[in-house]
Amino acid sequence: MGSREATGDRRSRGGTPQAREVRIKILYTAICHSDIYFWEAKEQSPLFPRIFGHEAGGIVESVGEGVTELKPGDHVLPIFTGECKDCAHCKSEQSNMCELLRVNPDRGVMIEDGKSRFSIKGKPIYHFVGTSTFSEYTVVHSGCVAKINPSAPLDTVFLLSCGFCTGFGAAVNVAKPPKGSTVAVFGLGAVGLAAAEGAKFSGASRIIGVDVNPNRLEQAKKFGVTEFVNPKDHNKPVHEVLVEMTNGGVDTSIECTGNIQAMISAFESVHDGWGVAVLVGFPGKDDVFKTHPLNFLTERTLKGTFYGNFKPRTDIPLLVEKYMNKEIELEKFITHSVPFSEINTAFDLMLKGEGIRCLIRMEE
Amino acid sequence: MGSREATGDRRSRGGTPQAREVRIKILYTAICHSDIYFWEAKEQSPLFPRIFGHEAGGIVESVGEGVTELKPGDHVLPIFTGECKDCAHCKSEQSNMCELLRVNPDRGVMIEDGKSRFSIKGKPIYHFVGTSTFSEYTVVHSGCVAKINPSAPLDTVFLLSCGFCTGFGAAVNVAKPPKGSTVAVFGLGAVGLAAAEGAKFSGASRIIGVDVNPNRLEQAKKFGVTEFVNPKDHNKPVHEVLVEMTNGGVDTSIECTGNIQAMISAFESVHDGWGVAVLVGFPGKDDVFKTHPLNFLTERTLKGTFYGNFKPRTDIPLLVEKYMNKEIELEKFITHSVPFSEINTAFDLMLKGEGIRCLIRMEE
Repeated sequence: MGSREATGDRRSRGGTPQAREVRIKILYTAICHSDIYFWEAKEQSPLFPRIFGHEAGGIVESVGEGVTELKPGDHVLPIFTGECKDCAHCKSEQSNMCELLRVNPDRGVMIEDGKSRFSIKGKPIYHFVGTSTFSEYTVVHSGCVAKINPSAPLDTVFLLSCGFCTGFGAAVNVAKPPKGSTVAVFGLGAVGLAAAEGAKFSGASRIIGVDVNPNRLEQAKKFGVTEFVNPKDHNKPVHEVLVEMTNGGVDTSIECTGNIQAMISAFESVHDGWGVAVLVGFPGKDDVFKTHPLNFLTERTLKGTFYGNFKPRTDIPLLVEKYMNKEIELEKFITHSVPFSEINTAFDLMLKGEGIRCLIRMEE
Repeated sequence: MGSREATGDRRSRGGTPQAREVRIKILYTAICHSDIYFWEAKEQSPLFPRIFGHEAGGIVESVGEGVTELKPGDHVLPIFTGECKDCAHCKSEQSNMCELLRVNPDRGVMIEDGKSRFSIKGKPIYHFVGTSTFSEYTVVHSGCVAKINPSAPLDTVFLLSCGFCTGFGAAVNVAKPPKGSTVAVFGLGAVGLAAAEGAKFSGASRIIGVDVNPNRLEQAKKFGVTEFVNPKDHNKPVHEVLVEMTNGGVDTSIECTGNIQAMISAFESVHDGWGVAVLVGFPGKDDVFKTHPLNFLTERTLKGTFYGNFKPRTDIPLLVEKYMNKEIELEKFITHSVPFSEINTAFDLMLKGEGIRCLIRMEE
């Protein structure tokens, strides 16, 4: 992995930030499934060497020309997608898919000049989703940086830069389960657990976790999951199991695996008349979502979300305040902690599906 | 067709209404596509002889035991789906899919005793969707009857019993296009024109009609359609044409044809970030809705509706008042008028796609 080579050089501080860019000293980061997905590059044209990492927190070290909203010393979360505040998406109350700074995993350079700010032995190292946080210093577009309350503990609130928001927002911003309703969450990794947490936050009274890994159950209870279904324990499709358990279907389902069959099941397990299914997990390139159109005509809704529909610069500082006011819990997502030199342990844990998040500390 | 045989016998007044049923003297009716679809019975187990017809208005002639909300002389619209006011769907603010009285085109008898109220030469004639309005008298479950303002002209407001509400409600209750937004309507028959009318009512400023019949354009202008796209005029898929015309996609699309390819196009033509597509047209039995799941993950929504999400007994009387207050226009949907003895002319017009609705007068 290019990242270890590059970050192994302690003199490397990322290049000088250009116009509208900031250089951030990363203090804490973690591995998310998307890092693994793009590192494995199974369905993509690989772009290497590359510095991965996009869930992180740090402190602004320097700013480039034209950056007025950030200054050295600010506590920030770099976000894999941005908010220019000027395009139709940023101006829409609903979308967070900024036209200028929307995530683009195929781009390995800065949008300002089409070049990388990292190099090794004179050759460029590519960026990853504009963040590249597996590095002691990184350069990020200022539109992709959320400035947060400096009294918030960065080793905890850094979780808001990806997984937590993706799942939590899928529930509170998109699915919006009514009080007392029944919610199914497909996939009980960090994103799914955050979705369950969001369902609980919204007042759902019955939260059914669906996962093929039976070890997920105990852990999931801490995040509001009240029942557990392992599709492997049943001889019928899981949506039929859920429809039977709930007398016609769940009110809301949230799909956090990215598996196409799970997406279809999540949709087909919601109740006719009012059921809403929300897709969160990232699908394969050639996947096709298939269902009988009558499943829609009987008044079901299917939606998708990206980063839980949170706007990076507007909403994340407010979520940090919610954490500070003890309205949301984050600590329980962090099950392991290693120094940066042991990042491979964090990779192993993620690949084995053990724990939820492994905090990676840049300073030993 | 069973209907003509049966109604040809002027002494037939339908059977005596049983408990919770009413006998209605039909004054006005019209043909809707669903009558043709089930008359042709292409994908179904045919149920004949049968009296079709479900878009109608009339006057209560007599009521069965336990009917307290209706009395002889009431002006009513029989509705193909009911509202028991007691089930989870009726109690939900969102659903109109009553568990007890939901439309069931495969059932040709009354739910009270599993028998028909029509007969010819001692043999039963089957009902159609609980209404069978191609008859001078019909018997309907009281939960499927909307009691309306007796001063409303029945020869106009009868339109609210099917097509108008299906399209208008798809727009105002389900798609809810924001003021100033762009809407595409697929299919410019009665339902599609009512959807366009609903989009205009909601404040949409650009309403793009999509139809393979170029003759629909002139007529559609009266219903708020501002632009017209004939998929046959283009070498690329129609969703690509719409995306180009609208700089990224329409805000809302409403599919009123039931053609599976049109359903997929309607969804794929909405804008990422906020686009909402609503399916209205009834699909074929073996149709499969297919799309790449990323089309959802980029924050598009797909919903379906049934009877425009209107609750028959609660909402239809209110819509009649809206008509009386000149908030909605209905006359322009009626392009032809024939006496009941010339019902075949109405069938011919519908099959040729000429006009919108042909009023059928039961009294010459």
